[in-house]
Amino acid sequence: MIYSWQELSKQVEAEINAFDFSGNPNELYDPISYTMTLGGKRIRSTLCLLAAQLFGGDLKKAMNLAMAVEVFHNFTLVHDDIMDEAPIRRGKPAVHAKWNRDVAILSGDVMFVQAYQLLAKGNPEKLSQMLSVFNQTAIEVCEGQQFDMNFETRDDVTAENYIEMIRLKTGVLLACSLQLGAFESGATEKDAKLIYEFGEKVGIAFQIQDDFLDCYAKQEDFGKRVGGDIISNKKTFLMLTALEKADAQQASRIENLMTSDTTDEQKVSGVLEVYDELDIPTAAKSAMQNYFDESLAALNQIEATADLKQPLVELAEMLMMRKK
Amino acid sequence: MIYSWQELSKQVEAEINAFDFSGNPNELYDPISYTMTLGGKRIRSTLCLLAAQLFGGDLKKAMNLAMAVEVFHNFTLVHDDIMDEAPIRRGKPAVHAKWNRDVAILSGDVMFVQAYQLLAKGNPEKLSQMLSVFNQTAIEVCEGQQFDMNFETRDDVTAENYIEMIRLKTGVLLACSLQLGAFESGATEKDAKLIYEFGEKVGIAFQIQDDFLDCYAKQEDFGKRVGGDIISNKKTFLMLTALEKADAQQASRIENLMTSDTTDEQKVSGVLEVYDELDIPTAAKSAMQNYFDESLAALNQIEATADLKQPLVELAEMLMMRKK
Repeated sequence: MIYSWQELSKQVEAEINAFDFSGNPNELYDPISYTMTLGGKRIRSTLCLLAAQLFGGDLKKAMNLAMAVEVFHNFTLVHDDIMDEAPIRRGKPAVHAKWNRDVAILSGDVMFVQAYQLLAKGNPEKLSQMLSVFNQTAIEVCEGQQFDMNFETRDDVTAENYIEMIRLKTGVLLACSLQLGAFESGATEKDAKLIYEFGEKVGIAFQIQDDFLDCYAKQEDFGKRVGGDIISNKKTFLMLTALEKADAQQASRIENLMTSDTTDEQKVSGVLEVYDELDIPTAAKSAMQNYFDESLAALNQIEATADLKQPLVELAEMLMMRKK
Repeated sequence: MIYSWQELSKQVEAEINAFDFSGNPNELYDPISYTMTLGGKRIRSTLCLLAAQLFGGDLKKAMNLAMAVEVFHNFTLVHDDIMDEAPIRRGKPAVHAKWNRDVAILSGDVMFVQAYQLLAKGNPEKLSQMLSVFNQTAIEVCEGQQFDMNFETRDDVTAENYIEMIRLKTGVLLACSLQLGAFESGATEKDAKLIYEFGEKVGIAFQIQDDFLDCYAKQEDFGKRVGGDIISNKKTFLMLTALEKADAQQASRIENLMTSDTTDEQKVSGVLEVYDELDIPTAAKSAMQNYFDESLAALNQIEATADLKQPLVELAEMLMMRKK
């Protein structure tokens, strides 16, 4: 039988709930159980299992790798939340807010090692390859986070810089998750590259979609406040594209809205007005669609049957639409 | 020829200076070069090379593992300095002080991955073993740091708890460094265990010695302020042993000195007076000597010639005496 992404996501959730994250001292391990059981769609681990299924691997064996990427991803959230001073994660206090900064740093470090411990349980013949892509990915995710923080104070960021940042911050870990599942299941080098590309491009498309929805979602369908990126002057793909396309008058209108003392509502509607004049919604949708098409093109080239690819297509579509 | 520890330490220093730690973005990589070139005796990496030499291995190949433990150790210093709010490291500003907290968190994370990248360059046949001891060690070092932080606010810490804490915080990484060098060079399982034990016990002895010197070193021979641990109410091996041995009157004298508003000089001389009454210097020296003897006993059991063991004995003696 072929598992849907929803079924594999449930298997990951069950594995996480059954996993023993406890240890001594409690101060170090309690935040790890807490973080790991906060929920989420378990996208990265599910992708890992879907790739293992795609290449005919043993899903039980691939589960260790799925857990490795899930623990790693949650480690990055714990450290990112300190840096971003984000008090809330999935509707609950972030670790640094519930405990303190030091606990968040050190528990995060332990999670990072636990990810490597899980990775080390993968196919021994592929360990060197898996370690290599995992190391490279971990470094790139940190680079992405640093670029993201740098962008806040830089005024020369281009839409191209932004795409590279989201590739590092989001794309490469989706890609790595898939590739680990592929390695575990003995995929060919060519197919392992293609599944990586699929994940990388899906990640970029997803992040552009996220920026788009922040401006254009219906409030009732959207978890966050619509317009939140505009209110916080975030340099999103939409904003950076707008600034590149804007004439002097439009650029100064955006500049004024970002710096002057308007209400949030005036700011959002003022920026969206410029976006409309510059056809930014179309530009964003088209960029997103291009990356999404490229991801599917990579998936298409993989030597596997369409029914085995179908759950990956469905997960990618879910990410694009933000639908269940 | 057989290299002395001083010669191998110099080789590590040269390797570090030749190593390219640069990368993009600069904000992430500059602190790494900065940290790695702050100096130090390179104890852990030198131990790794000495173990490789002991078991007839190729020192060039072992250098990657030596670098792995050196980068890992420096990563722990970067994160520990945030947690301890220590502004100075080796006479220069700590990373979080020179840059900021976020840079220190994220650069530290990258160093952690770099340690794994270096580890992955070790003997491929031993990769799984090496990864296993490295992971276990990294977790234990974090546990040691968390215990150390917990001890600051706990009032039920025993000397035994303290020994376990310094074993985790210091002993296991010395042990791991040696064992990686042993694995790389194809040491037997028995010898790999013995060299681990040597390092673990040396680490504990060294840390007790460090506590002893903080009270009893001559100021001109000591890098820090003599009595600093007493002034800052640190729960050292000496203090915890004293509290276990003290009668009610002595315990209350220590308690008073720790909580009342005396001068630093009065506090140090008052605590040392109780230490003398309880023969704490002898107890500390004897505990240190026991661990040191145990470490040498483990080294003695290893199947190798005495001249190959000699540089390890000399490095251990240097650590005990704090002499060059």
